[in-house]
Amino acid sequence: MSAALQALKERMMDVNALDAATAVMDWDQQTYMPAHGASARGEQVGRLSRMRHEMFTADETQKLLEGAAVETGDDEATAMVRVVKRNMDLATKLPSDLVAEKSKLGSDSQEIWVQARAKNEFGLFAPYLQRMIELVRKEAECLGYKEHIYDALLDEYEEGATAADVRAMFDTIKDPQVDLIKQIGELPETDDSWLYGSWDNSKQRAFTEMLVQAIGFDFGRGRQDTAPHPFCTNFSMDDVRLTTRFKDYLGSAIFGSLHEAGHGMYEQGSPRHFDRTPLCGGVSMGVHESQSRTWENIVGRSRPFWQHFYPKLQEAFPELKSRSLDEFVKAINKVEPSFIRVEADELTYNLHILIRFELECALVEGSLSVAELPEAWNAKYTDYLGITPKTDTEGCLQDVHWSAGLFGYFPTYSMGNLLSYQIWNALQKDVPNTDELMAAGNFKPILQWLQQKVYSQGKKYTPRDLVLRVTGKPMGAEDYLEGLGAKYRAVYGLA
Amino acid sequence: MSAALQALKERMMDVNALDAATAVMDWDQQTYMPAHGASARGEQVGRLSRMRHEMFTADETQKLLEGAAVETGDDEATAMVRVVKRNMDLATKLPSDLVAEKSKLGSDSQEIWVQARAKNEFGLFAPYLQRMIELVRKEAECLGYKEHIYDALLDEYEEGATAADVRAMFDTIKDPQVDLIKQIGELPETDDSWLYGSWDNSKQRAFTEMLVQAIGFDFGRGRQDTAPHPFCTNFSMDDVRLTTRFKDYLGSAIFGSLHEAGHGMYEQGSPRHFDRTPLCGGVSMGVHESQSRTWENIVGRSRPFWQHFYPKLQEAFPELKSRSLDEFVKAINKVEPSFIRVEADELTYNLHILIRFELECALVEGSLSVAELPEAWNAKYTDYLGITPKTDTEGCLQDVHWSAGLFGYFPTYSMGNLLSYQIWNALQKDVPNTDELMAAGNFKPILQWLQQKVYSQGKKYTPRDLVLRVTGKPMGAEDYLEGLGAKYRAVYGLA
Repeated sequence: MSAALQALKERMMDVNALDAATAVMDWDQQTYMPAHGASARGEQVGRLSRMRHEMFTADETQKLLEGAAVETGDDEATAMVRVVKRNMDLATKLPSDLVAEKSKLGSDSQEIWVQARAKNEFGLFAPYLQRMIELVRKEAECLGYKEHIYDALLDEYEEGATAADVRAMFDTIKDPQVDLIKQIGELPETDDSWLYGSWDNSKQRAFTEMLVQAIGFDFGRGRQDTAPHPFCTNFSMDDVRLTTRFKDYLGSAIFGSLHEAGHGMYEQGSPRHFDRTPLCGGVSMGVHESQSRTWENIVGRSRPFWQHFYPKLQEAFPELKSRSLDEFVKAINKVEPSFIRVEADELTYNLHILIRFELECALVEGSLSVAELPEAWNAKYTDYLGITPKTDTEGCLQDVHWSAGLFGYFPTYSMGNLLSYQIWNALQKDVPNTDELMAAGNFKPILQWLQQKVYSQGKKYTPRDLVLRVTGKPMGAEDYLEGLGAKYRAVYGLA
Repeated sequence: MSAALQALKERMMDVNALDAATAVMDWDQQTYMPAHGASARGEQVGRLSRMRHEMFTADETQKLLEGAAVETGDDEATAMVRVVKRNMDLATKLPSDLVAEKSKLGSDSQEIWVQARAKNEFGLFAPYLQRMIELVRKEAECLGYKEHIYDALLDEYEEGATAADVRAMFDTIKDPQVDLIKQIGELPETDDSWLYGSWDNSKQRAFTEMLVQAIGFDFGRGRQDTAPHPFCTNFSMDDVRLTTRFKDYLGSAIFGSLHEAGHGMYEQGSPRHFDRTPLCGGVSMGVHESQSRTWENIVGRSRPFWQHFYPKLQEAFPELKSRSLDEFVKAINKVEPSFIRVEADELTYNLHILIRFELECALVEGSLSVAELPEAWNAKYTDYLGITPKTDTEGCLQDVHWSAGLFGYFPTYSMGNLLSYQIWNALQKDVPNTDELMAAGNFKPILQWLQQKVYSQGKKYTPRDLVLRVTGKPMGAEDYLEGLGAKYRAVYGLA
């Protein structure tokens, strides 16, 4: 590595130290921080974010980047320069004040959102959301866009994607999915009431830890805690934090944990020499989500997976012993329009995202006001899912994203759904016996393939290039519609 | 507040954000961080410490200080300038590289220390300690001193104190204390074996949380976790973190929690407008320790305290029901030479500190090598306490301080012991019925007095001035020797 590149990398590691600090503070805020700590924490995180922004966009850093850019380096050096350049372009367009205010507001706002959700009081949260949207609009204007203001935001999470792409994606998948939901809706209702109850928290903790360790999450380099809204974060590739939650639905903890572990194993799988550099970690939100969905849905909701684990689950919760494996697999794949996105089944999930995408587009473009949001939310649930939330807690207050200022993030969940099947199909060409492996509790060959093809690439390629390299084609809906269709027809015995 | 002062305060709040970040990262490292996270964490904390140092000592900051210093402000403004100036003097003498290396080494070294302690392998830790001493020596040389290299280090924790002061203090208290220990040693041995056992962790957690809440620690602005070596830290006055530990001795958790809560209530008690400024928090290590010792020993090991709480403890642990209050009070005040400082009784405690003081003086001045440390440690325990540690785990590997680079810190524990009685005697002039209050479980008048006289002063006065203002005289051994003597003569029925 040339001296110029080395100097750039050094500077990026300083930036990484500030990023890690705010990430630890965010993790702490969502897991352990006492209630009244929020105000000072928000203030401090705001200052750190401002320092981070100032350091990253400083003339000196830009000179380091220019110096490194003219060097002829290897592939990885070229990739690092490309990634820093993209981030620099995004960051230099944003004034420090805006970054600091958004960060501070995000911190305060999340605290209020937790309260508002607990009390079912949208009014508490509304002024924070109002201000956040104003900041997000400024952000989009600073970043610039060609067609729609939303494009600027989406590009931050998924390089190159546009609102038009997202609309096209939903247009392709909506009808076949709604059709399948309808077919299943005509069958007798699946009974999953026996998965609801009062499940011992410490047993749920132990079982989910065993589960994510078994699929390959390394607890020497990570841990699992609880948070109101499960998430995964990491401070290095050797310190990855999962969170889950314990609710009356037994699946909440299980699939929450598997989902976050998918994110976590992706982060743990970067090449060691990428650690704390701009090339470390998942390449985009969509590709990241493909991995959480792979482990949650394709692996974690499959019959072979539970052939291995259901007896262990029955051991932990003997009340399940009267229920067969088939009943369990059907119950955890129950398709039913529901209110809470993170607990939605695989089939209806994308409709939850479609609703959020349409609403946040409208909020950002100004065609919908914050005051109108609860009603608009409920109207869309009635329209697309045929059900109407009774409270804002199970309606527009359910997600952390908007309180954190993450507008443009939701569509990447649906992209993740599509990519999970597309990548899984590629995996099955090299590892054809996935069902047998899972039934035997052997996840190593699966994880190894993903590690080699996806995780170990870090951010070396653009998301688009990575998908091409791994699957031989650009992101499409084909594998997804086919895989999902086959799975649900099997579970529900449809033709 | 003038514009110059306001600008200085703003800059100090940026410094505070970096301090809070490293404090959260340190807390996390000692409570929840997975084992392999240490290397990256150390690297990141090192970079943040360097940034903190660079920001604090920057020309711009020095100019802000000079600008603020010429303003005629109120008492608090003057105090803030004084505190920043002292810290600036300390910091500008230290080169950034040294600060970064010490911070990184401290982080790595603590992780190794935990392993070395668990495995009883001093050899694992020795090279880290060796390097730390080299850095500490450089630090002392940079800071400068008049008489002894140790003075430079001690002054960092206790403004103005010297090795000669510490020797004089020990000379005054050593004989009367050893005499009292001897008198008690001639009595039949106190049976506290029934306080050792296998105590349910969650019950210990619940009981200690109830206890520290009852004396006034605010859980809305703090929490308690567990750590191998209990400590207290805070990220703002509204986010104070206690730690405790659950061991086979029931008193470990109880007195550990009370001790850390004493530190914690001091931090929670700063005036709100001091928060995140240089005037917030405890004024010195010695005064800080006086408060932890007050709540741990003067309050928490008193008969009246347990008149109120012993029935509750018996309820939590019914195995205690066969033991009377008097037996309990005697057992928790058992005087017996022992190996572990943090579990030592009040009487022998200062001898543990004397040993550490003499050893770290010798290590720093170079008259003792790291290789010789275990033997020297054991020889002093044999000499002063009449007992010889069988392992380094219960010997020179027991304390976190040296791994963290905290040389010069130990004597402040003994100063705290002296000051706790001196301040308590002053308190009793205004609140004469402390025994009745404690027996009734009413700690408000006690906490309020301490809050008003000590905690609410923050760092406004120098430690010396504060002690004078609160007690009407400089720190001395009189109240301590008298108070301790009276207490132990009562517990042991001596003349």
